[in-house]
Amino acid sequence: MARRARHKRETGAEEVPSPASPHVLRRLPHFDPLDEETIIQLEAQVNWLIQEIGIEFRDDPEAHRIWQEAGADVTGTRVRADAGWIRALCAKAPREFSQVARNPERSVVIGGNNQVFAPIYGAPFVRDLRSGRRYGDMESFEKLVKLAYMHPNLHHTGLVICEPCDVPVSHRHLDMVYRHMALSDKPHLGAITEMSRAQDSVDMAEILHGREFMDENCVIMGNVNTNSPLLVDKVVSEAIRVYCGRNQGIVVVPFILSGAMGPVSTAASVTQAMAEAMMCCAFAQLVRPGAPFVLGNFLSSMSLKSGAPTFGMPEPVMSNYAIGQMARRVGLPLRCGGSLTASKIEDAQAAYESADSMHSTMLAGANFVLHAAGWMEGGLCTGFEKLVMDADRLGGYQKLLGGLDTSDEALARDAYAEVEPAGHFLGCGHTMRNYTTAFYEPALSDSENVESWEDGGEKDMRQRAYERWTGMLERYEAPKIDAGTDEALRDYVARRKSEIPEAWY
Amino acid sequence: MARRARHKRETGAEEVPSPASPHVLRRLPHFDPLDEETIIQLEAQVNWLIQEIGIEFRDDPEAHRIWQEAGADVTGTRVRADAGWIRALCAKAPREFSQVARNPERSVVIGGNNQVFAPIYGAPFVRDLRSGRRYGDMESFEKLVKLAYMHPNLHHTGLVICEPCDVPVSHRHLDMVYRHMALSDKPHLGAITEMSRAQDSVDMAEILHGREFMDENCVIMGNVNTNSPLLVDKVVSEAIRVYCGRNQGIVVVPFILSGAMGPVSTAASVTQAMAEAMMCCAFAQLVRPGAPFVLGNFLSSMSLKSGAPTFGMPEPVMSNYAIGQMARRVGLPLRCGGSLTASKIEDAQAAYESADSMHSTMLAGANFVLHAAGWMEGGLCTGFEKLVMDADRLGGYQKLLGGLDTSDEALARDAYAEVEPAGHFLGCGHTMRNYTTAFYEPALSDSENVESWEDGGEKDMRQRAYERWTGMLERYEAPKIDAGTDEALRDYVARRKSEIPEAWY
Repeated sequence: MARRARHKRETGAEEVPSPASPHVLRRLPHFDPLDEETIIQLEAQVNWLIQEIGIEFRDDPEAHRIWQEAGADVTGTRVRADAGWIRALCAKAPREFSQVARNPERSVVIGGNNQVFAPIYGAPFVRDLRSGRRYGDMESFEKLVKLAYMHPNLHHTGLVICEPCDVPVSHRHLDMVYRHMALSDKPHLGAITEMSRAQDSVDMAEILHGREFMDENCVIMGNVNTNSPLLVDKVVSEAIRVYCGRNQGIVVVPFILSGAMGPVSTAASVTQAMAEAMMCCAFAQLVRPGAPFVLGNFLSSMSLKSGAPTFGMPEPVMSNYAIGQMARRVGLPLRCGGSLTASKIEDAQAAYESADSMHSTMLAGANFVLHAAGWMEGGLCTGFEKLVMDADRLGGYQKLLGGLDTSDEALARDAYAEVEPAGHFLGCGHTMRNYTTAFYEPALSDSENVESWEDGGEKDMRQRAYERWTGMLERYEAPKIDAGTDEALRDYVARRKSEIPEAWY
Repeated sequence: MARRARHKRETGAEEVPSPASPHVLRRLPHFDPLDEETIIQLEAQVNWLIQEIGIEFRDDPEAHRIWQEAGADVTGTRVRADAGWIRALCAKAPREFSQVARNPERSVVIGGNNQVFAPIYGAPFVRDLRSGRRYGDMESFEKLVKLAYMHPNLHHTGLVICEPCDVPVSHRHLDMVYRHMALSDKPHLGAITEMSRAQDSVDMAEILHGREFMDENCVIMGNVNTNSPLLVDKVVSEAIRVYCGRNQGIVVVPFILSGAMGPVSTAASVTQAMAEAMMCCAFAQLVRPGAPFVLGNFLSSMSLKSGAPTFGMPEPVMSNYAIGQMARRVGLPLRCGGSLTASKIEDAQAAYESADSMHSTMLAGANFVLHAAGWMEGGLCTGFEKLVMDADRLGGYQKLLGGLDTSDEALARDAYAEVEPAGHFLGCGHTMRNYTTAFYEPALSDSENVESWEDGGEKDMRQRAYERWTGMLERYEAPKIDAGTDEALRDYVARRKSEIPEAWY
């Protein structure tokens, strides 16, 4: 308690009990539903895609040069390679690595039995209960970064928590990266949309962390989508070259809507995702052996009625479980899933879909979970209420991932000596010793009886969430940052803005 | 499609695609998070509870006689027994059995790799969007039975889908059992609250199914809670005697709020639940070797703020996984979990909690899932909207439980021959052959874009659910029942009502 109280004073973070670790240390086993025969069958198809079909690398001659020099079969823009060699290259990437935060107490371990939760990424719109749905702007962006920083169940602040649409596209990455560095001291991502923006992100990280430190440590990562099916355009290969070239991390994520960017089959889409991501990992290891790499997967089903993507459905849930098992076989940290939904508002649909998506993300052992909180409307909209609602549930998953305590104290034999059959355990010694830590205490679930709930104004979870995030922002205090470093970052942003013409596309 | 269409015509059931089977045939492996050492440790504690602490059997001298005659240590009302012997008795119960419905196409298999979903049981209140919260009555009861009958994702109609509070308590079981028999042809439960009511249920089943058929087949089951901690009162032992004595099934469920009816520890509560239920199973096998028995578990956490039960939290989720594994070791069919929540309304809290509760129920392999749909407010209230919302999600779980299809058709190599990298699979041969069955199509999730959703009136899931259940009721047609059988059932109910004084307690 003393430690928590001190922590709260220092950081202005929420008073909700927070896990002792800056990421989740998983003790619960993974759910591995595929038998050996099935895995071998799927891996054979991954190998076939890599060897026979190949992956297009386009608009990046340097990427072709790297592949060719290493001995791959490059025909035009198509890259094919021996699958055993690709797997051997993937094995050079670390099974787990630390992303160091500017506050070292908040550094996270990505990979192995560690799980890191980060908020939604990339939504052009925001929504909250008072102001409704609107384009994201820098004001919303700052509020959302502050909330992600303050929430004890988020370990990482991501990057594009919403699009700050009031900032020119060509300058946006500078403002976003600076806000993550200044308003929070948790780890975050850098930009990837263009090579120069990736470079700016890495250069700013160098100002924050120092050149020498960065040579030895991952302090920033990029997160980038391949262009499924089977295409890696220069945005991806250049991002890999910038981040991994500097020994920083990269997350490469095939985004496959089965039936559009992949066959209308979960098994086939999973193998395609593996093939695309593994080729990118191999490329990253050619750029810099040992560079941190996170194998991503973003699979979605679609509605028969409209062709619109659907989320939290059994097919992407199954893909989370399958990809988890396959990623561990390749030995790579995994990004998949999140609290995903197609719902436009924070209703039951949003929560059912988010929970099924996230429950499977968690049991599958995703090591880096982008979109763990705040996602709405198929990713088009960041919800302020949804952010704190999802994050409240993340605390429960963290508890579950701790596994079942079967210590002598947990088996509680002394309680049975004290309490007779038909008695009750409410005041017994074992209960008094353990009740404060026995159960996860969510902030936003109302378990009162109906009369109390009615007396309190019949608030639904969305209303309680609104009160929570607005209250959190009132208590926000910026984490301290070295004044010289802050000035250097501001100077960098100002200089680059003066160099880069304003552009809105 | 032809089969479905015919089925729809015959039964008036919903037009939503329904699984071909009257229950779920599971192909997905279970999630078994406990290692061998941990299981042995937990089983040792179960044995210790059975052998050293023992279970109270109260107010039923016949139960004591049965235990004593079989060789148990009966001291006063405390029954202790050799754990190996109890396990051997449990092994006499079938690992799986059929509950035969009056429409044989709707008979379900309980146990093994089969999962059966039934609605909420026991709520005194009901709630719907138009009429709000109120006491349950026979009108609501009938509507809910009709909905459970019509919904393709519910396999079993349970019994007390709400309390029909306008019927005298002493007559209620007769009216409830008759409604399940007449308004539906799915399997259902009988009453247990008093020995004579259990007997009435079994006698009515005999009218419906015939004496000889019932000697050889399970056609009705009772569902009863022990009085945790470690007490089995006569309601339980008499229900076992009536149902199992007639070779019918019994579900015995310790209801443990950890910290009150069990130690404030998930591990200890799980062992206690196993000990209580196994002793009841052993008792059932002494009454009639081979009688169908379902081992139940209902564990809940509580709020530190109020002591109120909480649902969908990590501790009961963990208990589902643990008890699933332990039940399979004993070789007994399992009841656990459900779509549980403490929320008063059909909001995001209700859905988050229900989904996490149900996701774990499903992966844990619960064979008989009471409360799979309609549960609100800690079980005090049956929601009309919640019933169809939960049931909509059950269809997704059914799809997931089918496992990952890795047939040649699912691996879709021909699609990669047809579609070039950077192309799309929307119209390719493989997609055209498979798209209609590739994805679960929920009825209540809206995946449209925000403009369409706004044009449609910005309906949340609750509003769509209201429209769905009211529309279903308009299409309800009672399944045919033999006129003579129906008359015999009505005569039985009328005669028993004239014999039993009206009582409201």
